[in-house]
Amino acid sequence: MDFSNNKKTALSKSDKSKKGSIDIHILQLIDSINASDSYFSTSSCSGRIILIREGERKNEADWEFVSHELVEYNDLHNAIAKLADRKNVWLRFEPPIVHISCKTLEDAQKLLDISRPLFKVSGIISTQKNIVEIRSTERIDVPVEAMSEEHLKIIIDLANSKLQKGWNKINQLEKEIVKII
Amino acid sequence: MDFSNNKKTALSKSDKSKKGSIDIHILQLIDSINASDSYFSTSSCSGRIILIREGERKNEADWEFVSHELVEYNDLHNAIAKLADRKNVWLRFEPPIVHISCKTLEDAQKLLDISRPLFKVSGIISTQKNIVEIRSTERIDVPVEAMSEEHLKIIIDLANSKLQKGWNKINQLEKEIVKII
Repeated sequence: MDFSNNKKTALSKSDKSKKGSIDIHILQLIDSINASDSYFSTSSCSGRIILIREGERKNEADWEFVSHELVEYNDLHNAIAKLADRKNVWLRFEPPIVHISCKTLEDAQKLLDISRPLFKVSGIISTQKNIVEIRSTERIDVPVEAMSEEHLKIIIDLANSKLQKGWNKINQLEKEIVKII
Repeated sequence: MDFSNNKKTALSKSDKSKKGSIDIHILQLIDSINASDSYFSTSSCSGRIILIREGERKNEADWEFVSHELVEYNDLHNAIAKLADRKNVWLRFEPPIVHISCKTLEDAQKLLDISRPLFKVSGIISTQKNIVEIRSTERIDVPVEAMSEEHLKIIIDLANSKLQKGWNKINQLEKEIVKII
C-alpha cells in the first residue's frame, strides 16, 4: 500500500456524500488534515439536525429534513406538519464525525490521543488501512409521534446549541491537529 | 507487558461500576470472552434506560433513575413526577457497551471485524493496551422538560424494544466470538 498514491486518488474523487460538498464548519479542519503527509480525510460531517423515517429493514430510511446549519422553529414545524404519518419518524441531532486515513498505526494512535478528550466515541476502525473514526457523544434522538409543539421548541433550542458546541469542538481539534502535523 | 498477568489482576479486582455487578443479559458474553487466552473484558453494560440531570460542567450529573431491565410506564412517570425541576433532565436509552483488552493488535482487529456489523460504533481505543470498545448505534435522548404523558408512553415502548434488541445483539455477538476464540 502506497499511502501517498492512495491519498492522491482519494482526494481527486468527486464527493459522493448526500450533500455533495464538505460542510463549511469543518472545512478548515479537513484542509489542515489533508495538508499533512501522514493523514487524509475520507469523509466528514460537521453535525446535523435531521428528520428521518426509519424503515423495517436496515438501510431503509427516508430523509424528511436535513440541516447542517442552525434551524428555526418554523422550518421543523412545517417539515413535521407535511408528514403524512409521524410513525417511525425521529428528530435527531447527530454530532460531528470524521474519518481519517493515517500513514502508520503510530500516526493513528497520535491522532486518537488528541481526539478522544474532545470526541469521546473515537477509535481506530481498521488497522489494515489505519482509519480513525472521530465522533462525539452529544446526541438528540426523539420520536416525533405525539411530540408537543412546546416540546419541539425546547428540542430545537437544544439541537441548535449542540450544533454550535460541535463547531467549537471541531475548531479546538483543528488547533490540536496543527500542533502534531 | 505480560497479558496473562494483567488479565489475572484485572479479573481479581472488585467490580467498581455504579451497579457493582455484571448485567445478567451480558454475563454469558463476558464469560466467553474471559474464557479465552487472548481476551478479557474490563467493563460492560447490557444497555440501560436512565433519567439524568446534566450539570453545567462535565462529569457533573445526577442520576435520577436507572434500569437495566424493561420498564413500566408508572416507574418512569413516578420518577419524573418526583423531580423538583425538569430542566436539564434527559430520558435516555443507552446501548450496550463492552471494553475488551486483547493480547495482540491482530486479536483486537479480529474482534473488531466480527463486532462492527452488529455494533457499528466499535473501534480500537488504545494500540498500546489493545483495547476494543464495542458499542451500537441505537439511542434515545429526549429532554424531559415539556414532554407529554402520551409522548412518554411512546418513548417507553421504544426504549423497551431497543433494550431487547440490544440483548439480542449481545447474544449474536457471543455466538460469533466463540467461533474465533
